[in-house]
Amino acid sequence: LGENEVNMSNPTAAMLVIGDEILSGRTRDANMHHLAQELGARGITLAEVRIVPDIHERIVAALDDLRAAYTHVFTSGGIGPTHDDITADAVGAAFGLTVDIRDDARAILAAHYARTGLELNAARLRMARIPQGATLIENPVSSAPGFTIGNVHVLAGVPAVFQAMVAGVLPGLTGGAPLLSQSLDIARGEGEIAAALGDLAARYPDLSLGSYPWMRGGVHGTQIVVRGTDGARLDAAMVDLAGLVS
Amino acid sequence: LGENEVNMSNPTAAMLVIGDEILSGRTRDANMHHLAQELGARGITLAEVRIVPDIHERIVAALDDLRAAYTHVFTSGGIGPTHDDITADAVGAAFGLTVDIRDDARAILAAHYARTGLELNAARLRMARIPQGATLIENPVSSAPGFTIGNVHVLAGVPAVFQAMVAGVLPGLTGGAPLLSQSLDIARGEGEIAAALGDLAARYPDLSLGSYPWMRGGVHGTQIVVRGTDGARLDAAMVDLAGLVS
Repeated sequence: LGENEVNMSNPTAAMLVIGDEILSGRTRDANMHHLAQELGARGITLAEVRIVPDIHERIVAALDDLRAAYTHVFTSGGIGPTHDDITADAVGAAFGLTVDIRDDARAILAAHYARTGLELNAARLRMARIPQGATLIENPVSSAPGFTIGNVHVLAGVPAVFQAMVAGVLPGLTGGAPLLSQSLDIARGEGEIAAALGDLAARYPDLSLGSYPWMRGGVHGTQIVVRGTDGARLDAAMVDLAGLVS
Repeated sequence: LGENEVNMSNPTAAMLVIGDEILSGRTRDANMHHLAQELGARGITLAEVRIVPDIHERIVAALDDLRAAYTHVFTSGGIGPTHDDITADAVGAAFGLTVDIRDDARAILAAHYARTGLELNAARLRMARIPQGATLIENPVSSAPGFTIGNVHVLAGVPAVFQAMVAGVLPGLTGGAPLLSQSLDIARGEGEIAAALGDLAARYPDLSLGSYPWMRGGVHGTQIVVRGTDGARLDAAMVDLAGLVS
């Protein structure tokens, strides 16, 4: 299992999932897989994911690690109206910025709650608490905005909102060459083809060769996935691969 | 979204997922959710998850961070027969231990391949490379063992094998009080009940109160999840909760 390397010549990104509900086993994370695919298509390498609990110091520490190490950081979760939605404060603390109710965010919420006939109470106003100087990210689903400050993009955890915010943010980021992939299924176990595969990987250091075992109807096999940004190199590796294992 | 706190009085654990295939978006991780639930039932708090690429230095650095911070570390992935299965070497490097083919692991593989009629070739022998002094973890699915060294448990990434290894390791670990949970669905939005919920959370600092919005057939609602290790306290909080939101 695994591969040579990820593509580190492209811009890089990390994801920080803020959520006790994932760590406790209540919820399966649904956002990581979506972000991984969207970033890959845009030529941004997802290079690390961390999941931390809803604890201020842990969020700040992870933010400081990740924003120093990668081009972009995407957070998910913790920007709702309840007592435990503490992401905005943690991001403010990491950047040393004041976090308070902002007029632009309040106006968005006021318009939304006027439309829906619900009261913009104190809890909902918490969702207008945005670090000073941050740029709002539109939320076309439920209005409460995310925000970008420096290289950190703060998104909601609810999957429909997370996805809408990703769609809003990504077009504004500089991508690299999109990550391309080709795959070949071989009805032989990993152990049979490992040596040939290792040789191939050594001859294509610019590509990432992954091997993933499978079993179907009692037959053991391997899926080889070749990834890279140069389509001609991928084509050449696939031809060599087919020759090696035939 | 989110909660008060995780239970940090129980033993803690971190999970380190080693896998370019997760970061590239090819594969959805299936092991984290399983481990989270198994640890919770045993009274071990899953306190952090990291996903890193198949890069030696990145694996070693994450291992060093996590094994210093938590009671246990569980890794998944990177212990197969191919060129990119580098987890054993990374764990050996983190602990400063020699990694070589070990007789006990070789005997397990030899018996397995004798049974299946396949050759124990050089690639498959790589799966007998185990750090000096590590204790083997049985693999009842496909024989190639995992291992425990210090507080680090090195498991396979293939879900069926990962789960079997978790079942083998957990009974040997000292757990705390199992994490209990109760939940209540309320047909009101998070913003309606946030103030009452915050008050309740403040009165039960020993419990974790999470709120998770949902929408069904156009109705917005919230699921409140109360978690803790003292069943009587959970019962009391649920009674108070029902009273607060009725």
